[in-house]
Amino acid sequence: MQHSQGGSWNGGQKGSSRSAGIPADQATVRRSNLSLVLRHVSERGSRSRSLVAAETGLNKTTVTSLVGELVARGLIKEIGPQHAGAVGRPGLALALDGSGVGALGTEVNVDYVAAFATDVAGRVLIDRRVGFDATGGGPERSLDELARTIREAVAELDLLGVTLAGITVAVPGLIDSATGIVEVAPNLGWYGVPVAEVLAQAGVAPNVPITVDNDANLAALAEFTAGVAAGTSDLVYLTGEVGVGGGVIAGGRLLGGADGFAGEVGHVMVDPSGERCGCGRIGCWETKVGLAALVRMVTPERAYGVGDGVVRDPEERLAEIELRQAAGDRRVDAAVIEVGRWLGRGAATLVNLFNPRVIVIGGYFARLAGQIIPVAQTELKRLSVAGSASRCTFVASDLGFGAASRGAAGIVVERVLSDPTSIDIRHVVTSRPGKER
Amino acid sequence: MQHSQGGSWNGGQKGSSRSAGIPADQATVRRSNLSLVLRHVSERGSRSRSLVAAETGLNKTTVTSLVGELVARGLIKEIGPQHAGAVGRPGLALALDGSGVGALGTEVNVDYVAAFATDVAGRVLIDRRVGFDATGGGPERSLDELARTIREAVAELDLLGVTLAGITVAVPGLIDSATGIVEVAPNLGWYGVPVAEVLAQAGVAPNVPITVDNDANLAALAEFTAGVAAGTSDLVYLTGEVGVGGGVIAGGRLLGGADGFAGEVGHVMVDPSGERCGCGRIGCWETKVGLAALVRMVTPERAYGVGDGVVRDPEERLAEIELRQAAGDRRVDAAVIEVGRWLGRGAATLVNLFNPRVIVIGGYFARLAGQIIPVAQTELKRLSVAGSASRCTFVASDLGFGAASRGAAGIVVERVLSDPTSIDIRHVVTSRPGKER
Repeated sequence: MQHSQGGSWNGGQKGSSRSAGIPADQATVRRSNLSLVLRHVSERGSRSRSLVAAETGLNKTTVTSLVGELVARGLIKEIGPQHAGAVGRPGLALALDGSGVGALGTEVNVDYVAAFATDVAGRVLIDRRVGFDATGGGPERSLDELARTIREAVAELDLLGVTLAGITVAVPGLIDSATGIVEVAPNLGWYGVPVAEVLAQAGVAPNVPITVDNDANLAALAEFTAGVAAGTSDLVYLTGEVGVGGGVIAGGRLLGGADGFAGEVGHVMVDPSGERCGCGRIGCWETKVGLAALVRMVTPERAYGVGDGVVRDPEERLAEIELRQAAGDRRVDAAVIEVGRWLGRGAATLVNLFNPRVIVIGGYFARLAGQIIPVAQTELKRLSVAGSASRCTFVASDLGFGAASRGAAGIVVERVLSDPTSIDIRHVVTSRPGKER
Repeated sequence: MQHSQGGSWNGGQKGSSRSAGIPADQATVRRSNLSLVLRHVSERGSRSRSLVAAETGLNKTTVTSLVGELVARGLIKEIGPQHAGAVGRPGLALALDGSGVGALGTEVNVDYVAAFATDVAGRVLIDRRVGFDATGGGPERSLDELARTIREAVAELDLLGVTLAGITVAVPGLIDSATGIVEVAPNLGWYGVPVAEVLAQAGVAPNVPITVDNDANLAALAEFTAGVAAGTSDLVYLTGEVGVGGGVIAGGRLLGGADGFAGEVGHVMVDPSGERCGCGRIGCWETKVGLAALVRMVTPERAYGVGDGVVRDPEERLAEIELRQAAGDRRVDAAVIEVGRWLGRGAATLVNLFNPRVIVIGGYFARLAGQIIPVAQTELKRLSVAGSASRCTFVASDLGFGAASRGAAGIVVERVLSDPTSIDIRHVVTSRPGKER
C-alpha cells in the first residue's frame, strides 16, 4: 500500500523528478536517508543542517536536498538561526514539524468502537470511545459503525488542516497484517473478515493507507511509548477482558512473529485437566484468568452464556463483583486470589520465554491490581526459572481502554518516520493552514 | 571491554589521531559508519569506493578515510580495478578480507567441551569436541579444562597468523551476559560461577574480550545463519538433552530479553498435576520431553538418578533405546509417541507466543525426528490458536553437537561487523602473514 502511494506521488511532483530516473537501489537509499535525517531531528532536537551533516556523516549537499524534501512534506520546519553547539557557521535551525500530518488509530472491541488521533509530533487531536455491541452486531454492522467513526474523524482532521498519513484499525484477533484480513477474532465471532478492503471500498478516506493489527499488540506499543513503563525495552502487556490478550515488546520492538500472530497468550495451555475453553481447547489460560472465569466463580448464575439474555458490559459486571466483595462475600475474595495465582502461573511461562522487565496489566486486571498483583508476584517468583534474578514486576496500566487505538495511531507515526515518502506531498502543501491562510 | 580496547588502540596509532580529539558523539558516528561500510561490502560483494559512497550516501572523502581504517584493521582489502556497475571512474575494488581476524566459540556442556573458530569471512579454522564430565567435574575442574581448550585454540590461530577478535563461551544455563557470570546451570549444578572472570584471570588470551552466553540461544543463531532453516527470520530452536533448551530468533534477531534469560523453554509449566522436575517445580515441559523422561518410560530401571552409579552419555542411552525398539519392545514405540505428543503440546505454546515459521529440533530430538515429528506436527496444528494458518513446521537440525560453539563464534564475527574498532589494529598489523612474511 505504501508502495502504490509512493508510486502515485512519483507521478507528477516537482520534487520527485530527481528520483524517477534513478535505480531502485538509490531510491531506497534516499528513502532511508530521509528517515535518518527526520529521526535525527526528532530524537536529538532542533539543529542546523551543518550539524546534522556532521553528526550523520552525510554530506552537506545531500542533507540540504533531504531537508528540502522533508520541509515540502510538512515534516520539518525552519525555526531561526542555531548557534549553540553548531559546527561551522550558524545556519537556520531545523525542528520536527509534523503539525500538518495526522495519524488515526481506531479500535473495534466487544463492546465499543474507539478513535484516537495525533499529529506526527505527538499532539493529541482526537480521543473518544463510543459504546457499541460489536459481537451482537456482526462484522457488517460493526464495520459500518467503524466506517462512520472514521469518516467523522477524517472530517475533523480536515477542519484542523491536518493531512492524514494513515489509519490503523485495532481488532482483538489474529490479523493478516499484509492484507488487513481478520483471520479469527473469537470474542467477536469474526472469521476471515477483510477489514481493510471493506473500509477502502466504503471510501472512508481516499488515498490514505489502511492497516489492521491486533489490539493487544498495539496496546503494548502504546504502553511502550506512553504508559506507566514507557521506554522499558522488554515489556509484556496483558489485558484482562472476557478473554485475555497479550502484546510483547522485545528489545524495544513489537514482537510480531512470522505472520503477526505473536503474543497470543489467552490460549496458552496451562492445565491439561482443566476446563474447556470457548475456543474448543482444554485448559487455556483465559479459562483461569479471563473475566468470564472470574464471573463464573463469583456469580455462577450470571456467568457468560448463562441466563437472562441481558448483555452486561465488563464495567457493569465488575461493579457488581466489587459490590459483593464490599458486602463481605467471601467467594469474591477467594476468586480474586485464584485469579491472581493463575495470573502468576501463566506469567511465569511468559517470563521464562520473554524475560521482560515489566508485565503491564490492563483491562479488568488493572482495576483489581491492588488485590491480584501481590498474589501473582509471589507465584511468579516461585515458578519462573530465574526467580527474583529476572527482576520482573507487575504494574497496572493507566491508559485504560484507549491503549489500543493510541498504539494504532503510534504505528502510523512510526511509519512516517521510517518512510517520509509515504506522505502525499500534494495534500500537505494544499491543506497546511500556515501556507495558505 | 570493547570500549577499553578502543581506548588502547586510540593510544598511539597513526590512523586514530583524527578521532582522539573529537566529541564522543562523533566517535560513535564514525564507529557506526565503519560498520555501515564493512557490512555493505560484506553483504553486497566487492565494489569501488565511489560505488560505496553512491550507495550509502556517505561522501567520498569520508568513505576513503573509513576504508583506510578498515584496511588497516585487516577487515577489507583491495582486489584490483572494478569496472562493472561502478559509478564514475573505475577505482580499486574493495572486498571483505577478515582472513587475519578470527572468532572463537567454545562450549561447556554436561558431557563435553567444544571449540569452533572461523575467520571474519566465515572460513572454518577449528572444529572439535572432546568428551568431558562437566557435571561430575564441578565448575573448577571444568573451567580448567575449558581454559586448556582455549589456550590450545589460541595457539593454533596464532600459528595461522590470525588475530583473535573475541571468545564466546556457551553454557547451558541462565547467564548474566554483561558480567559473564553463570547464574544458574541446573544440569551442570553451577550457581553463580564467574566464567568470564575466571578465564580472564587464567590469562587464556590476553586482551581478547571474553563473553558468555546461553548454549541454546547460540545454537539458534547458528541455525539461523548456517542450519537447515538458515535465513528464516522467525525461528525457534529446541534441543533435547537430559533437559530441554530453547533459543528464539524473532524478526531476524536473537531474542535476549531484559537479562539475556529469554527462551528458557524447559521449565515452562505444562501440567500442574504432573511430576516433580529436577528444578523442584511441578509439571515442567522437560519432565515430559527431556531425554530423562524418555529413559524413565522405556527403561525405568536405568532412569537418571537410579541405579548402578555408571555414567552413560546420551548417545549410549539412545543407542540402547533404539536397540530395544528394533527388537520389538512396544514400550519404546509408545514412549516415543508420548514424547512427540508433548513436544507438540509445548510447541503450541511457543507458536502462540512467538509465531515462528519453523521449529528446528536438535539434540536427541533430531535423532528420533522421523518418529516424533509427525505426531508433534498434528498436535501442534490442533492446539495452536492459528492452527495451520501459522504454517509452522518442525525440521530436524543437521548441525549436531557443534551448533552452540558455531553460534558462539558467529556472535564474535557479528560484533566485529557492528564495531570494527573492537579489532586491535596492532595485533593485526604485526601478525598478518601477508604483511610480514
